[in-house]
Amino acid sequence: MKIENYIRDIQGFPKEGILFKDITPLLNDPIARQECLSVLVNSLKDQKIDKVVGAESRGFFFGILLAQELNAGFIPVRKPKKLPYETIAASYELEYGTDSLEMHTDAIKKGDRILIHDDVLATGGTAKAVCELVERLGGEIVQCNFLMELSFLNGREKINEYPIFSAITY
Amino acid sequence: MKIENYIRDIQGFPKEGILFKDITPLLNDPIARQECLSVLVNSLKDQKIDKVVGAESRGFFFGILLAQELNAGFIPVRKPKKLPYETIAASYELEYGTDSLEMHTDAIKKGDRILIHDDVLATGGTAKAVCELVERLGGEIVQCNFLMELSFLNGREKINEYPIFSAITY
Repeated sequence: MKIENYIRDIQGFPKEGILFKDITPLLNDPIARQECLSVLVNSLKDQKIDKVVGAESRGFFFGILLAQELNAGFIPVRKPKKLPYETIAASYELEYGTDSLEMHTDAIKKGDRILIHDDVLATGGTAKAVCELVERLGGEIVQCNFLMELSFLNGREKINEYPIFSAITY
Repeated sequence: MKIENYIRDIQGFPKEGILFKDITPLLNDPIARQECLSVLVNSLKDQKIDKVVGAESRGFFFGILLAQELNAGFIPVRKPKKLPYETIAASYELEYGTDSLEMHTDAIKKGDRILIHDDVLATGGTAKAVCELVERLGGEIVQCNFLMELSFLNGREKINEYPIFSAITY
C-alpha cells in the first residue's frame, strides 16, 4: 500500500497558485491510516516518548494517534486565545506579517521526552515555534515528525538541530 | 479512576460568566485518556460503526481515537473554508447570529453507519448541524457521543431522535 495514494491534490486551495495536499482520504480509510501510523511510530526505533505535541489543527489527528500508540501524553499547541489555562506563546513569520502559537505552561515537565508532530513541514515556521515552546518548558525534543515534507521550501533548515522524520517527501 | 478529575474548571473563559471545562489534562494523561476512550467505546455495545465524525476542533481528539479503536474511517467536520474539496454546509444558531459547519461531499456513502462525536453537548446547535450533514449524505446515525453533557442547557432536546451517550453529565 502506498500512503501517497490517500493524499489528494487540490489545485488553488486555500488560494490561487497553491497545490494543497488533502489528507482527509487518509483519515477516512482505517487501513491506510494504520499503515501511516506504523510508519511514523517505526521511525522512532523504540525511543521512549513521554509526550506528543501536535500543532493546530491538522497536527491533532496523527498527533493523538501517536500519543495513544506510544502510551504518551498528548499536548495540543493552538492559535492564540484557544487554550483556557495559563500559556506561553511563540511567534512565527507568515508571507505577510506574523502569527503565534500557544502551549499550556503545565503541559511539559523539565526533562520530558517530546515528540513533535504536524501534518506538513513547509517553510518550517510553525515547527520552529513549536520547538521553541517545548524547550522553554524544559522538554527534550526526541524528533520532529511529519506526514509530508515539501522539500522545495527548505523548512528542514529551520529545525536542523533536531532529528526530523517525514513519511512522504515531495 | 474518575475521568472527572482530569477535567479542569476555568472560570471566565472564553468570556466572563462562563465556566469552561478544560480537557487538556485528560489528553495529557495516557491512563485517564484510555479509560475515557473505553467508556465511550463500551457505550456502543459492539454495534458496527463504519465512520466516526468529529467536530472542529476539540471533537477531533477522541473522535479519531474512537475511529482507530473501532477500525472505522474518520471524518472531520470543520468551520467554513477549512476543507479543501467539495463540501456541503449546515448552519446553526449562536448567542448572536449564526455560524456554519462543512463536510466533504465524498466523506460518507449512502447507508454508512455513523458515530458522531464532540467533546461537549451544550445547547445542541453544533450536534444538530452535524446530524443534518450526515443525513444529507445518506449516513445512518448510530449514536451521538460526547465526553461531557451540560444538562442544564437542554441540548439533548435538539437531537432527541438519535441515541445519545455522554461519559460525564454536569
